[in-house]
Amino acid sequence: MRKEQDSFGTLEIPQDALYGIQTVRALQNLSFSGKSLRQYPAYIASLAMVKKAAARANERAEVIETSVRQAIEQACDELIAGKHLEHFPVDILHGGGGIGTNMNVNEVISNLANEQAGMPRGTYAPVHPVDHVNASQSTSDACHTAIRMAIVQEYAGLDDLLARMQETWENLVQRLMPITTIARTCLQDGMRVQLGETFSGYAAVWKRRHRSLKQAVQELLAVNLGGTVIGSGIGAPSAYREAVLAELCHLYGMRLQHRENLFDAAQNLDDLAQVSAQLSLLSTCLLKIAKDLRLLSSGPEAGFAEISLPAVQAGSSFFPGKINPVVPESLIQSCFQVLGCDRVVQATLEHGELDLNVFEGAAGANILDALYMLKNALVLFHEKCLAGIEANEERCEELANTFIPLVVDLKEKHGYSFVSKLIKEKGREGVKSFSRDGGLNDESNK
Amino acid sequence: MRKEQDSFGTLEIPQDALYGIQTVRALQNLSFSGKSLRQYPAYIASLAMVKKAAARANERAEVIETSVRQAIEQACDELIAGKHLEHFPVDILHGGGGIGTNMNVNEVISNLANEQAGMPRGTYAPVHPVDHVNASQSTSDACHTAIRMAIVQEYAGLDDLLARMQETWENLVQRLMPITTIARTCLQDGMRVQLGETFSGYAAVWKRRHRSLKQAVQELLAVNLGGTVIGSGIGAPSAYREAVLAELCHLYGMRLQHRENLFDAAQNLDDLAQVSAQLSLLSTCLLKIAKDLRLLSSGPEAGFAEISLPAVQAGSSFFPGKINPVVPESLIQSCFQVLGCDRVVQATLEHGELDLNVFEGAAGANILDALYMLKNALVLFHEKCLAGIEANEERCEELANTFIPLVVDLKEKHGYSFVSKLIKEKGREGVKSFSRDGGLNDESNK
Amino acid sequence: MRKEQDSFGTLEIPQDALYGIQTVRALQNLSFSGKSLRQYPAYIASLAMVKKAAARANERAEVIETSVRQAIEQACDELIAGKHLEHFPVDILHGGGGIGTNMNVNEVISNLANEQAGMPRGTYAPVHPVDHVNASQSTSDACHTAIRMAIVQEYAGLDDLLARMQETWENLVQRLMPITTIARTCLQDGMRVQLGETFSGYAAVWKRRHRSLKQAVQELLAVNLGGTVIGSGIGAPSAYREAVLAELCHLYGMRLQHRENLFDAAQNLDDLAQVSAQLSLLSTCLLKIAKDLRLLSSGPEAGFAEISLPAVQAGSSFFPGKINPVVPESLIQSCFQVLGCDRVVQATLEHGELDLNVFEGAAGANILDALYMLKNALVLFHEKCLAGIEANEERCEELANTFIPLVVDLKEKHGYSFVSKLIKEKGREGVKSFSRDGGLNDESNK
Amino acid sequence: MRKEQDSFGTLEIPQDALYGIQTVRALQNLSFSGKSLRQYPAYIASLAMVKKAAARANERAEVIETSVRQAIEQACDELIAGKHLEHFPVDILHGGGGIGTNMNVNEVISNLANEQAGMPRGTYAPVHPVDHVNASQSTSDACHTAIRMAIVQEYAGLDDLLARMQETWENLVQRLMPITTIARTCLQDGMRVQLGETFSGYAAVWKRRHRSLKQAVQELLAVNLGGTVIGSGIGAPSAYREAVLAELCHLYGMRLQHRENLFDAAQNLDDLAQVSAQLSLLSTCLLKIAKDLRLLSSGPEAGFAEISLPAVQAGSSFFPGKINPVVPESLIQSCFQVLGCDRVVQATLEHGELDLNVFEGAAGANILDALYMLKNALVLFHEKCLAGIEANEERCEELANTFIPLVVDLKEKHGYSFVSKLIKEKGREGVKSFSRDGGLNDESNK
Repeated sequence: MRKEQDSFGTLEIPQDALYGIQTVRALQNLSFSGKSLRQYPAYIASLAMVKKAAARANERAEVIETSVRQAIEQACDELIAGKHLEHFPVDILHGGGGIGTNMNVNEVISNLANEQAGMPRGTYAPVHPVDHVNASQSTSDACHTAIRMAIVQEYAGLDDLLARMQETWENLVQRLMPITTIARTCLQDGMRVQLGETFSGYAAVWKRRHRSLKQAVQELLAVNLGGTVIGSGIGAPSAYREAVLAELCHLYGMRLQHRENLFDAAQNLDDLAQVSAQLSLLSTCLLKIAKDLRLLSSGPEAGFAEISLPAVQAGSSFFPGKINPVVPESLIQSCFQVLGCDRVVQATLEHGELDLNVFEGAAGANILDALYMLKNALVLFHEKCLAGIEANEERCEELANTFIPLVVDLKEKHGYSFVSKLIKEKGREGVKSFSRDGGLNDESNK
Repeated sequence: MRKEQDSFGTLEIPQDALYGIQTVRALQNLSFSGKSLRQYPAYIASLAMVKKAAARANERAEVIETSVRQAIEQACDELIAGKHLEHFPVDILHGGGGIGTNMNVNEVISNLANEQAGMPRGTYAPVHPVDHVNASQSTSDACHTAIRMAIVQEYAGLDDLLARMQETWENLVQRLMPITTIARTCLQDGMRVQLGETFSGYAAVWKRRHRSLKQAVQELLAVNLGGTVIGSGIGAPSAYREAVLAELCHLYGMRLQHRENLFDAAQNLDDLAQVSAQLSLLSTCLLKIAKDLRLLSSGPEAGFAEISLPAVQAGSSFFPGKINPVVPESLIQSCFQVLGCDRVVQATLEHGELDLNVFEGAAGANILDALYMLKNALVLFHEKCLAGIEANEERCEELANTFIPLVVDLKEKHGYSFVSKLIKEKGREGVKSFSRDGGLNDESNK
Repeated sequence: MRKEQDSFGTLEIPQDALYGIQTVRALQNLSFSGKSLRQYPAYIASLAMVKKAAARANERAEVIETSVRQAIEQACDELIAGKHLEHFPVDILHGGGGIGTNMNVNEVISNLANEQAGMPRGTYAPVHPVDHVNASQSTSDACHTAIRMAIVQEYAGLDDLLARMQETWENLVQRLMPITTIARTCLQDGMRVQLGETFSGYAAVWKRRHRSLKQAVQELLAVNLGGTVIGSGIGAPSAYREAVLAELCHLYGMRLQHRENLFDAAQNLDDLAQVSAQLSLLSTCLLKIAKDLRLLSSGPEAGFAEISLPAVQAGSSFFPGKINPVVPESLIQSCFQVLGCDRVVQATLEHGELDLNVFEGAAGANILDALYMLKNALVLFHEKCLAGIEANEERCEELANTFIPLVVDLKEKHGYSFVSKLIKEKGREGVKSFSRDGGLNDESNK
Repeated sequence: MRKEQDSFGTLEIPQDALYGIQTVRALQNLSFSGKSLRQYPAYIASLAMVKKAAARANERAEVIETSVRQAIEQACDELIAGKHLEHFPVDILHGGGGIGTNMNVNEVISNLANEQAGMPRGTYAPVHPVDHVNASQSTSDACHTAIRMAIVQEYAGLDDLLARMQETWENLVQRLMPITTIARTCLQDGMRVQLGETFSGYAAVWKRRHRSLKQAVQELLAVNLGGTVIGSGIGAPSAYREAVLAELCHLYGMRLQHRENLFDAAQNLDDLAQVSAQLSLLSTCLLKIAKDLRLLSSGPEAGFAEISLPAVQAGSSFFPGKINPVVPESLIQSCFQVLGCDRVVQATLEHGELDLNVFEGAAGANILDALYMLKNALVLFHEKCLAGIEANEERCEELANTFIPLVVDLKEKHGYSFVSKLIKEKGREGVKSFSRDGGLNDESNK
């Protein structure tokens, strides 16, 4: 163990820890969730990108020297490459507006940078975590920017997946279009419908929700790096402020830009909440689709039984041979979790106050969690369920030829009042006779 | 129009209005919801009860004279009898911690009281709305107490109804017990079940949620009258404070008592939030029941069709003869509204601060709304749906004799692995043959 | 009373009622909310517009005769003009997918139309509510289209208001820009800030949420009229289907268009849910602003006291002279209600199933309620609070010159570590001395 | 790698895995959350307790032989002792009603049991995971019972903590009782209050919410073991059913009992939802307390500054010497997460259907998560914040002697109208003069 000191006293730190006393303080004071920063590699990488761009801009603004910049950059590159994850133990949900997250990154970078210069871990010279790594930044703007970059990056995978699944839906729609079955409203028998028509609704809502989510995520590209704590940029020289975002874009090819008003950016995280609301809307629509698939495949004998889902495993430890819609049910549960994450994000938005919303980290982490769970569940749903859906053609045909669809045909010919009266007077069997006796022929028209 | 004046200036008031300038201020400054106090007669009556008890206690404490007390009492009695509702125009949801509600009541009582003494409306003497009607009270403790009394009273009707419906459920359970049908898990065919067994689950959850709700409502009988603004009782003489709740109990036979800690009562409305949470839990369970009934009665040919719900009206402007489960759907929608009300109550609890939660009125109004809607929907559901549910016996029998229930019987005899293998090797038809060939006889046991 | 009959029997209807037996059935079977269609005039007008356009398209498609079309049109015009509201008693939240709403409108139009031809109310000839007024439509597409039209129309007022308030905010920002005060993070003293800078964040989030809400509302212009029940258009001749939306646009100058996929339109109401989610996001941001205003104006002596809100009425029945932020508190409570409405809309989306989401009416009504309450609360907030906000300049100046802002200045000069050590070693007073002794001069730099 | 086979084919399993093919199927088909069963040791232990009790009851009912029972028991004991956690990789949130969880446990126990008999892992004889370990059970009743046992057990730690913290609150109340300060309503200055009185409200709500939560958790002791899938007990001999719960109670000293109606138990998880609702209510009240502490300690110069929270670490990477309320903020964020968990539990309750709610596992896992996070955050809050709260006496005294408290005193003497008029006529300074000139003496009374 080595010892480190701050204004609160001295603490023992594991000898080989790349993090330092501020990280340990956050660990000891603020850890409650069981989830640590190390489980969010995209966020760590984004923070390192921010630190690297800041170092470059600080060099330009003559805040730090070239050798310090170089050392910081090299350290950041290791983090961006995904190394040293085990040195990010800080709780992802710790309170205090992200101070622990920012300091964990600052300390790891500082120690890595100094190690290049042959200094032991815990030295904090020549590269100091606050005076150099964090120079011209605050926790507020560094974390604000990095969490948005991480979400954009994590979303990319979901975006791809949603697009690929769109194609699968459209193929399925084509495949199911020739099958005539029955529609239901209020769960009561309705008119004939092509199974592909019903599924075309799933494909359409999929596309719309995907598009809206994508749009919401793209708004995250407007960030406040350079605004420091509350958007005023105090503490950051103007040369730095002009350069830092351009450096970041240049280094990583992202189309980041400054928020129109940086005070707004520090006060409000509604851009995050909007992404979360869109995830929630998408999930609610997925929930409906997954529940529909369960219902349409209910049976085999005592349910709707219009489609079959691929069987992937024994459905029960009790019933031999019972196959359950376990994959849609996993999707449903992932959607529930997204609703839960959105509730948290709503709370972070509700409880922000004054010049800085300090609950941003919680909002970001819950969005990353939601993206992660939804993506995983959709991959499984895509591979193990969606692609293999089959219509039960006989059953569909049988359903398509029941009483209510017949009534719809008769109404088309004779009007609502006429058929209403017919049913009232002759009953179900009478209607069928009437229909068999030519009631549906053109000449039968009143 | 008459003129009234306060420290903000002069306003015109309708000549015959029993309310006065403070009410009009609240109307002009704070009305947004479209719902006014007059739509909540139980709350008005409860406020009048509080004012009457306060007048009696104030007389005892020598804060007001007997003649004033008598005049106030007589005025209160009119309000308790349900008169003058049109003189309560203040917005039920106005901001400011209920000041408009309290002043509306104070002003109406004052004007009624003075009218007895031959004074024109708007005189405010000999009985003054603040110095006499509101004497020893604050908006905080008067409204706190009255809203809880109103909820307790409104709940009484729902309580009765839930109890009567419990009996209906139990009769239904008995009636459906002889019908054997199929159970489903994950919407897939399961084992045989008596329809009455399934319905016994509905009866049981009904009873439990009723009991928990009742318990939560009863906690509202602990109130803070006498605590004035923040629970300290400043502004109320101790003789008054000792008497007022006893007067209220004595007058109206309610088992009200003081909260253990009156500061707590002013700070926290979690007792209301708990009632709301229980309403939400009840509603969610009702939602499940109503959705089950829709599903079990789905069809007539393309659905589960195990039960029939009473037909109460044409279900569609499009399909002649189509009957929809419109009554359960109304119940479902009332449950949605209760969830919405609960979200509001949650917000009022979340955003309270320091010594007084000023959002209590909003919490109370949403609970009264939830009670009102749920009660109405349940009355209809009881009369128009529940009592008339019928089993489709033939259909149930058919479902009870399908493949999976057979497999369950075989498994009972031969174990999971044996039957699993049998299905795998011989298929569905093979299993049926095996079973027909004695596989279910005792001697067939391995 | 007159008598009317349907397949369920005979009912008495008030002699002069423009509605008929189907409306009364819905009233008797499905009313629970206490809010009736008549309270939603924009929705009634929109329904009448749909019926008028449908009549025109039906005439073209030779479904109805010219005289019938004319009679329907004239009746619709009366409703569009806002007449006969008292004849729409049906519960706005009734279950059954809107059947009662549609039939209420069909019956009123039919009776009005026949009255022109000298027939008594209740005749339903020559113009029949279902065969003529509802011809080629279903409840599903008629209500779907009309509710969206109503929301678009009701939103227009809020849109205007939000734009006007944007200007007020921007004027306020200008007015408060010269005032220097202190910023706070985690509610702890921070650096200096111009009060106008803080308020510029409010103006910015206002603009962004307005823009997103507007965009969401505009998506409602894509509707499914002509799709009948589930989007297939069965029951509507193609000549009608081609004409009806064009008629509607032509008559009322709205830029309505068909949804890309009409099956999707019947299945999913995520476009409504998105509007509601945007209302919820807007409200949550308003909540933050209103709470900030309360906090910044807290005092006068024991709070932040940086601004004063206009005094509009006595704040308390207890404290003479106490002025409370009652207008922001009304805004806060309207925001709570919007959160509640959104919870309902979420539930309607979550519980939809298969080919038609029958809970659309509940979604629409809650959005209309949210719009109504928010608009009212914002009008008051605009007039009675926002425009009159004043800075307390002396207090702000005093706050701007406290310890932490000084430390920020020192840190700008000397770096975090140096100042940290200075504080640690010399304490608060020592830092002040250092600063007075030239620590902030350029030459003092290390 | 070893090979295992089921009716879906053959899979490779790690040679030393105690789990088998069903676990791997669940892993491959249903994993999405990133959280595995191994992170829930209390749940694994509870499942093992259920399996052990079941084995004993199965022996009595002559379903399994003594040697099998003994082997199962020994295996269970290892799991109850916390061993082999790494063999529970199944996703805690997988779909399918818990099948993966139950089979993971069945397979691990089977392999452990067989290993005692010298059989290699993957043999499944003499002890078979389904035929023996799962005998007389279903996933439904085994998991239902175990998840409730796990919650009860995990709650015990929180229960202790809440009780200990109650004492800390009460000590704090005593300690702060002598300090007079100002109360605020609507954030505006109010009357004098003892700081301990304000804090007594926190202590009281703490106690009440603790009591209600405890009561809700105790309802979880009513379980359905023996009911198998839907509560009918099919598949479980009556000798087993009579014995199994008694065995469980006997072995582990828990006061478990059967639910009154086992069908209800399989259909409804409102007992879990009630625990979650209580956690949510508790958290919302904690949120209020934590936010109050932030506000009361705001400053040091530009805020309320009535109390000081212990400083635990540097609050900012930007401001040297800035101390933030990071510990209450962690508590706030843990409360947000509890609200999120409750939203998920609500969804599981809302979407259950028919004879079995298959989302129970998700409900249980979210409650365990909520308990875990809240407990951790409260431990920190207790140790690092609550115990060390100090009043800033001078500041409190100053606040207690401001204008509004003076007005309250005057009103006590002279009534609301008199003082109102005095303020109106003489202004703030005039009121102070009046008061100094004897306005508060007894003889000054009108």
